[in-house]
Amino acid sequence: MSPTLLRNVRPWGGDARDVLIDADAIREIGAPGTISAEGAVAVDGDGGILLPSFSDVHVHLDSTRMGLPFRPNTAGDTRWSHIMNDRENWRSAERSVADRATYTLGRMIAQGATRVRSHAQVDADSGLEKFEGVLAARDAHRDRASVEIVAFPQVGIHLEDGVPDLLDLALRSGADLIGGIDPCEIDRDPIRHLDTVFDLADRHGVGVDIHLHEGGSLGLFSLDLILERTRALGMAGRVSVSHAFSLADRSPGVDRALEQVAELDVALTTIAPKGSLTVPLDLPIERLLETGVRVGLGMDGQRDYWSPWGDGDMLERTWMLAFTQGFSRDDLIEDCLAVATWGGASVIDATLPRLAPGVRPGVAVGDPAELVVVRGDTPTAAVMDRSSERLVLHRGRIVAENDDLR
Amino acid sequence: MSPTLLRNVRPWGGDARDVLIDADAIREIGAPGTISAEGAVAVDGDGGILLPSFSDVHVHLDSTRMGLPFRPNTAGDTRWSHIMNDRENWRSAERSVADRATYTLGRMIAQGATRVRSHAQVDADSGLEKFEGVLAARDAHRDRASVEIVAFPQVGIHLEDGVPDLLDLALRSGADLIGGIDPCEIDRDPIRHLDTVFDLADRHGVGVDIHLHEGGSLGLFSLDLILERTRALGMAGRVSVSHAFSLADRSPGVDRALEQVAELDVALTTIAPKGSLTVPLDLPIERLLETGVRVGLGMDGQRDYWSPWGDGDMLERTWMLAFTQGFSRDDLIEDCLAVATWGGASVIDATLPRLAPGVRPGVAVGDPAELVVVRGDTPTAAVMDRSSERLVLHRGRIVAENDDLR
Repeated sequence: MSPTLLRNVRPWGGDARDVLIDADAIREIGAPGTISAEGAVAVDGDGGILLPSFSDVHVHLDSTRMGLPFRPNTAGDTRWSHIMNDRENWRSAERSVADRATYTLGRMIAQGATRVRSHAQVDADSGLEKFEGVLAARDAHRDRASVEIVAFPQVGIHLEDGVPDLLDLALRSGADLIGGIDPCEIDRDPIRHLDTVFDLADRHGVGVDIHLHEGGSLGLFSLDLILERTRALGMAGRVSVSHAFSLADRSPGVDRALEQVAELDVALTTIAPKGSLTVPLDLPIERLLETGVRVGLGMDGQRDYWSPWGDGDMLERTWMLAFTQGFSRDDLIEDCLAVATWGGASVIDATLPRLAPGVRPGVAVGDPAELVVVRGDTPTAAVMDRSSERLVLHRGRIVAENDDLR
Repeated sequence: MSPTLLRNVRPWGGDARDVLIDADAIREIGAPGTISAEGAVAVDGDGGILLPSFSDVHVHLDSTRMGLPFRPNTAGDTRWSHIMNDRENWRSAERSVADRATYTLGRMIAQGATRVRSHAQVDADSGLEKFEGVLAARDAHRDRASVEIVAFPQVGIHLEDGVPDLLDLALRSGADLIGGIDPCEIDRDPIRHLDTVFDLADRHGVGVDIHLHEGGSLGLFSLDLILERTRALGMAGRVSVSHAFSLADRSPGVDRALEQVAELDVALTTIAPKGSLTVPLDLPIERLLETGVRVGLGMDGQRDYWSPWGDGDMLERTWMLAFTQGFSRDDLIEDCLAVATWGGASVIDATLPRLAPGVRPGVAVGDPAELVVVRGDTPTAAVMDRSSERLVLHRGRIVAENDDLR
């Protein structure tokens, strides 16, 4: 493959540069016109801002209804009613899981995400059908994005027969991580739930990513059980906790939990939810960056049987993250952009350098060839504008331009 | 003026209809093809959703920097530091207040707002200069939107000399309402502040719109003083309170305050702010609708010396309102759309019928000729998609199409 010479781009909004990229990494950065284009595919960046590509590290590609007729929401108020609403309706969608996941992943890539971690529901009702749909989407876009798949027991592990075997089968069939969910509230047996999850992780040598919506002291209890197992199995750097609403609280237990999260290098993912006076949901992003905790951003569901929210655009989700954090300062809004790009990349690959407040990584010589060019006077302006004029690079090659896949 | 025949539109997402509109009101609604187009200007609505136009009832046209180069935020953490940051910088903007306000008002209209209430800062530093800039913007767009202007003492009334006289002059020069701000926190003399505001209102026979950021029991105290004066002067239906963060709280005093707000027909405006665990900001929208309190939505500042947020699009702000309210049900999201359109119209004109949950007004025969056509399978889908494909009608005439002013 020929290298790509990206002309006239501004790394993190700095001075204009030309950037030479091969399939693996950024190879050279120079003043405009100073890098030989010989043998390279030259592309005009037109003064756009060069950033590491977006990393969506918490998405449910199997449930999406993006691109289909809008369907009013028929879920009730509880998490369980949402689970059952999905179960009752997903088979009657106009298109297969594979088609829907493929379309949605394409939209995500077109808008700048080339690193993705998707959950794929594995349960007694759907067996591996949803998982296989996500596998098909990954395959369809294998030259445009890197996709990790989590075998995700959305309906618990021990409420219905055969789920541990299905999860085992998914892990032998291409899943990269084992998931889990609210060990107390769903299975109502946290030890049995988590022991099954960590046993599968241990046997298959894969990482763990657990949905933890449980709030307050219950969530901190479940988190403590996760941390205990992470330590016991020597899995530091290989465990993620998604949502982690209990860490959005202001109770004294949060400090102790965050210390251990940092020590055991447990990663966190957030979908930039809207918390409230009575239900805190938003992770303390700046505090996580200050303590070196890996944190990434995701879209969650996308216009599915759970909710109408979500549209595949990680730049818009970055805007929501800054909004939900209450940020107006440019450095803080740029930190959100760093979380949405490099932060997520470090959730997927714990060997990457950590973020910290004000650190703007991912666009130097030697950095991965996963990049996006966005429009704006400054990175903060780009977040505010959310222009669809973008260039997206995966493995050094342009894979999407101005909202269209190549 | 010829009437407009809007063909093939779906009122609030219902069945396709043709709609005949003159300068004052909707005159006829019929099945497609059943209304004679003779003498009318026929426009194809292409199956779009017909809604009452957006009403932005809380915007600061004088501070906007939309359309100018992005400027990093140099304000500090407090409200006062924002006030002073604006004061230090507004004169050095690349364009005059009039130019900036005119451009931004044009963007708001292009995106569907034809009813606007803008604050215009009146203080010892700027005199009437900002106010006159907003007057010029209103004049420039007088055929495209109805604009009310609030003479707004952003820096208080009694901290600097001459402000009451400036407010008086503004009210004699075209201001429609008298404003006020945080009677305890800014002037630190709530009685003197409010007595001046209500005295000006009484003398000029104008309405009142007071910024009330004060939270908790302090905000409820100031609100009580406002209610007391509203009652004493017989100003029921002519007073608005903007933000009213103290009503986002869950304290017992809120119930009593809301009873009086309803009884005295005081209107509320919100900008859909992001509250938090410690600082509740979001008004209880459904409760307000249930109790018949008039409530409208606004953009607040737009990319100005206060913050980078705000882009003139009330459909996007509707999306933010639904998001901050934590809504996923279609009926609740549509209620937000009703607030952003008809709710604001009723803030401006208290004689209009009230909103209530599930009520979808503004598109029946006799309703005002202020309309917008948006894209989407359903109203909720339109909020989620926020497509820029829109038709905007003011006084029965198309004034903007697909993001461009006519």
